[in-house]
Amino acid sequence: MFFEGSEKKIEMIFTANSGNLLERPHEFWDEVVDKCNASILSMVENEHCKAFLLSESSLFVWKDKILMLTCGQTRLADSVLYFLKDCPDLQTDFLIYQRKNEYQSQLQPSSFMDDVYLMKEFVPGKSWRFGHIHGHHNLLFHLDQPYQGPQDDFTTEFLIYDIHRDASDILIKAGPSKQEVRDYLKVEEYFPDFVIDDFGFEPFGYSLNAINDDRYFTIHITPQENSSYISFETNIEPNEQLNRYLRQLTESLRPSSFDLMSFDSQYAFQFQDEYQVMNHTQKKLSSNLQVDFRYYYKINETIDEAFEIKG
Amino acid sequence: MFFEGSEKKIEMIFTANSGNLLERPHEFWDEVVDKCNASILSMVENEHCKAFLLSESSLFVWKDKILMLTCGQTRLADSVLYFLKDCPDLQTDFLIYQRKNEYQSQLQPSSFMDDVYLMKEFVPGKSWRFGHIHGHHNLLFHLDQPYQGPQDDFTTEFLIYDIHRDASDILIKAGPSKQEVRDYLKVEEYFPDFVIDDFGFEPFGYSLNAINDDRYFTIHITPQENSSYISFETNIEPNEQLNRYLRQLTESLRPSSFDLMSFDSQYAFQFQDEYQVMNHTQKKLSSNLQVDFRYYYKINETIDEAFEIKG
Repeated sequence: MFFEGSEKKIEMIFTANSGNLLERPHEFWDEVVDKCNASILSMVENEHCKAFLLSESSLFVWKDKILMLTCGQTRLADSVLYFLKDCPDLQTDFLIYQRKNEYQSQLQPSSFMDDVYLMKEFVPGKSWRFGHIHGHHNLLFHLDQPYQGPQDDFTTEFLIYDIHRDASDILIKAGPSKQEVRDYLKVEEYFPDFVIDDFGFEPFGYSLNAINDDRYFTIHITPQENSSYISFETNIEPNEQLNRYLRQLTESLRPSSFDLMSFDSQYAFQFQDEYQVMNHTQKKLSSNLQVDFRYYYKINETIDEAFEIKG
Repeated sequence: MFFEGSEKKIEMIFTANSGNLLERPHEFWDEVVDKCNASILSMVENEHCKAFLLSESSLFVWKDKILMLTCGQTRLADSVLYFLKDCPDLQTDFLIYQRKNEYQSQLQPSSFMDDVYLMKEFVPGKSWRFGHIHGHHNLLFHLDQPYQGPQDDFTTEFLIYDIHRDASDILIKAGPSKQEVRDYLKVEEYFPDFVIDDFGFEPFGYSLNAINDDRYFTIHITPQENSSYISFETNIEPNEQLNRYLRQLTESLRPSSFDLMSFDSQYAFQFQDEYQVMNHTQKKLSSNLQVDFRYYYKINETIDEAFEIKG
């Protein structure tokens, strides 16, 4: 069974006089999510933020901002188009759309550039590739206009590939049991102040949203051996505490590689020596966003056995 | 302009009493090549071997064996099916079909597994992946039955990615000038005994076939910066002389990474220290073929600038 765990992502910020997004009815978000062929499973909220857990990933909503991640064969660009085309009351000040290198891009309903052409009918934008074309990379489209965000608006994306067989076994065996996965990831131990909303899929696979004031983190797990993928994304300030958690993830999951993508952060994460930075690509976008992409790979001295593809 | 340089490859060996392939008329090979939407540009031959240069790569024919490489959006599996289905006089003793990880698999007319399903209607086979799914890898399907080939039947595939801008500039500037590319690659200097047939494409891109007795090598170049790809493949015995040539290629081309795939060879190639083996995968196939895949990556301490995707 193949499932494309790697996400597409949008972040959009609207002009203040576009109204408070938190006051929009649930039906509005149903519609947004429906546009990309996903559906809402559950929601937690506080005064700053609503966090929707989706059938395929997550949607976070703040007063003037949305963040949406979807995986599988969703058409996230269609949700962007819904905002750009069908919501004339919302004026977009900031937009980024990302797709990382997919496992099986031929199974996707559209390519990154297909999506870009659609969005460019409505907004001027630029497209960038971070990382080598045949190594890990991340494709990013953004609205081509300056934007001044708040000082404490960081984003850290931590994308984990090819976890160790033992970790894969544990996560598959946990199946839909949410507490087992929470415990294994030590989520409650590291983030005791966050309200957590999570979902265990049948027969396996796991999604988590967590919020505390205006901060969030979200975790998505595709545990299958040989195409395993785990993503952790947050706007928690990058610091030693966050670094400790990311190190704890690499210690328990023992992935063969991971990507760290930082937005507007100068914090230098440190990982175990065995993980080497294979590529560091950076760019200051015209929207004033500083983007750093780092691809880490575990130097492996052992010889692997070829993997039999059945089917 | 994007061109998928990375090849698909078939090697098929037929039972001795299937007749001498070298005696087949030119029209037969036209038909084989036409099946995968390529065409024959030119041919050189000796008593052991015919080497056809194709619009998209190469076809080599020996008495009982064919080797065919095609790139771009060709459907090489259809050439295999032609042998399996439409040539009942040819009995297949050995078959391997390979596809490496493509740059833009969504542009391909079929996936590796699509191809495998088609071939499996005619022959029993197994499929393997050498290398990590999200790193460089090579997919290989083979006829699932023992085969005893000659002792001196080695194959070395050397796949070179992301060459240095200077090398890319030289190869693009050379355009269709064959001699300039030959000189740059030092082909005649290293392989003076080989008969060479080469072709320079407009506006750039280069293919070369070379034969000497029953030995061959073939080189294909897609020089575009940011999706550059060069392949070198041969059945010359792996030894210090061949190693020197491969090192000379990495010295002039300065690629960011390369793959070395060896069939039935124990020779340990040595490269510059800056290239590190990121993955070594091996498998002894049921057809008695020993396959070793090694993915080398140049450790890069500098920070790259993001690449702008225009279009």
